[in-house]
Amino acid sequence: MNQQPTWKNSDPAFQHAHIYVHFKAVYTLPVKEGGGKGEDRRIRAAQKFLHNCGSKGKTGVLSRLAVGNVMNQVMTQKPHELLAATLADELDAVNLLIRERMASEHAPRIPEVTAHLVEAGGKRLRPMLTLAAARMCGYRGEHHLKLAATVEFIHTATLLHDDVVDESNQRRGRPTANLLWDNKSSVLVGDYLFARSFQLMVDTGNMRVLDILANASATIAEGEVLQMTAATDLRTTEEIYLQVVRGKTAALFSAATEVGGVIAGADATQVKALFDYGDALGIAFQIADDLLDYQGDAAKTGKNVGDDFRERKLTLPVIKAVAKATDDERAFWVRTIEKGRQQDGDLEQALALMAKYATLEATRADAFAWANKAKSALKALPEHPVRTMLTDLADYVVSRLN
Amino acid sequence: MNQQPTWKNSDPAFQHAHIYVHFKAVYTLPVKEGGGKGEDRRIRAAQKFLHNCGSKGKTGVLSRLAVGNVMNQVMTQKPHELLAATLADELDAVNLLIRERMASEHAPRIPEVTAHLVEAGGKRLRPMLTLAAARMCGYRGEHHLKLAATVEFIHTATLLHDDVVDESNQRRGRPTANLLWDNKSSVLVGDYLFARSFQLMVDTGNMRVLDILANASATIAEGEVLQMTAATDLRTTEEIYLQVVRGKTAALFSAATEVGGVIAGADATQVKALFDYGDALGIAFQIADDLLDYQGDAAKTGKNVGDDFRERKLTLPVIKAVAKATDDERAFWVRTIEKGRQQDGDLEQALALMAKYATLEATRADAFAWANKAKSALKALPEHPVRTMLTDLADYVVSRLN
Repeated sequence: MNQQPTWKNSDPAFQHAHIYVHFKAVYTLPVKEGGGKGEDRRIRAAQKFLHNCGSKGKTGVLSRLAVGNVMNQVMTQKPHELLAATLADELDAVNLLIRERMASEHAPRIPEVTAHLVEAGGKRLRPMLTLAAARMCGYRGEHHLKLAATVEFIHTATLLHDDVVDESNQRRGRPTANLLWDNKSSVLVGDYLFARSFQLMVDTGNMRVLDILANASATIAEGEVLQMTAATDLRTTEEIYLQVVRGKTAALFSAATEVGGVIAGADATQVKALFDYGDALGIAFQIADDLLDYQGDAAKTGKNVGDDFRERKLTLPVIKAVAKATDDERAFWVRTIEKGRQQDGDLEQALALMAKYATLEATRADAFAWANKAKSALKALPEHPVRTMLTDLADYVVSRLN
Repeated sequence: MNQQPTWKNSDPAFQHAHIYVHFKAVYTLPVKEGGGKGEDRRIRAAQKFLHNCGSKGKTGVLSRLAVGNVMNQVMTQKPHELLAATLADELDAVNLLIRERMASEHAPRIPEVTAHLVEAGGKRLRPMLTLAAARMCGYRGEHHLKLAATVEFIHTATLLHDDVVDESNQRRGRPTANLLWDNKSSVLVGDYLFARSFQLMVDTGNMRVLDILANASATIAEGEVLQMTAATDLRTTEEIYLQVVRGKTAALFSAATEVGGVIAGADATQVKALFDYGDALGIAFQIADDLLDYQGDAAKTGKNVGDDFRERKLTLPVIKAVAKATDDERAFWVRTIEKGRQQDGDLEQALALMAKYATLEATRADAFAWANKAKSALKALPEHPVRTMLTDLADYVVSRLN
């Protein structure tokens, strides 16, 4: 299933029209109130589009074919794709900023490495969360672009260092930077991106935003170290797992949404709601990821079932099984996870123990509970088309578990 | 020559007295105007000390012996030791802050690794520069302690990552963290220290300070990447070398002194002078280091002559020789540095080429010129005992070249 939007290679006017039609069809956004240069462009594009649709001949046929594509698209587009379409102009500006700021006059290795990662076609989920939060809170300035670029830089720097730590060779189906260049480049270019993200956030001149991002950075770094030491330690509790998950995923999600609200001058209740949304979304996302490792369809996830088990990574399904283990079962986990002495049939045995205590079901329930928590948090925010998309996004991250 | 201060193991009161006597003897500091709790303690300690000196019997004899030691000490103590003695109370507070902030409730690996480095007996030169700048500018608050801890954290994080990049096994005669633990720990704990340093500086609530440290971080990271790619590239000019040196050493020196002035509310001229001092001091320090690699006394420096040559690191003495090289000589540098195909006698040949163009002398002249620049910068600051020590420090970093 190729979900690549069909309008990607089409006429720019049509692209904008698609977004506009999409808006009309699904959210009936009051576009005239939207304001801004981008909005005007979309309105003009939509007028051109509708005009083309009505015309005869080749253009008309093509346009009518395109309408079919568009309507099809609207029905199947994923929430993060809808968000990307809605925030398209701002995302373009963020991408421009990212390219500008990752440049280095004197050290060409820096843009080489970062371009490899930044242009690798990530979903830009984290910057979108910042843009979405700022949009919902009615922000009119430009600092949210810097903050969106900041969170993407922090994310990219973390990936670079993670690949060194995990000794990974592949990410998103492409060779990692540490493989293409070397560990040195990954470590130092990661540091450079951290420093650049720091400059970007200082540029906003907003001390609260700095405080939030400094604390998130510490949570992320502490979580990474914790993961390294806790991953194979059977004493790891669900509480510690949650802290690792916050470090790995949720802390940057919640910082991304929170700073979007803060920069927009949202009130304390709304800022708290944005934090809670990002936190719960990140946790749901990571729990779902960890669950799919044991019950996913390899064709869909691109991972083999049991990779985490083979790599001796304690995640929630196993932590829950360890908590209920008999002495014999505990000995099994000690041998396979703590000591890493695995043999044929161990994965099957591990899955059998998870089945015995229904830990995959319990983990699934946890993921859905966090997704629901994310959706509830949004209720403290005013009704807005973007809010609907964020609600759908929370459903989407656990929909993979159905 | 063991320069370990003799008062290190003596009575605390005596320690303070030593500082006081030292002040009286060398700088005649107007102590009563010094104010502050630490100053009071020193005055009381000095009174106790003088009282003891006057008394008969064992105590009196010991004290008089001690006076001899102290006076001897005063004459032979290095400028950074004088600074450490002068700033002793504040340095204690900084060390306490460092220990507090490097703690991690959940990830014990963090304090293990950082304690190894932070307690390894570094000279704390960078935090001292911040404390010294704040003291000279009459600062009375406590934010300078956070900034001093910040620069030490950034320095330590950089060391951790450097050791991974250089694949070093030893630093200051002790095994490196990447050897004792692993590269993962060094990368992730380094990241943690960066994040902690970031929190510390945000705690000051001073946006200018954040701006300075963000820019310094970017210069440091860019310099590190540049060093990696430029080190074996014969096109590396003196200008690029200077940028690498700024990234490696001078950017953190200049940020350390500058933020000390900024937090103290110094005027623009003084802040500029502090920046210039740190920048020039750092450059003089690094050029001297690079020169000693070729002409140092291995017994004193703890390094073998020509380590940089063997590791194919282009430093100033070689860059100057390459700039003047004949075609044959250039081929020699291409083979030994760019291609790294070294054989017996190459170091001798390299030294002969440096002698031919007198590049060691020229490098030495550069180091002294930067030290003089550092001293000149200080003239924009009001007369102060600490200013004298900083002047002496600039002389000291190049005195190793005599």
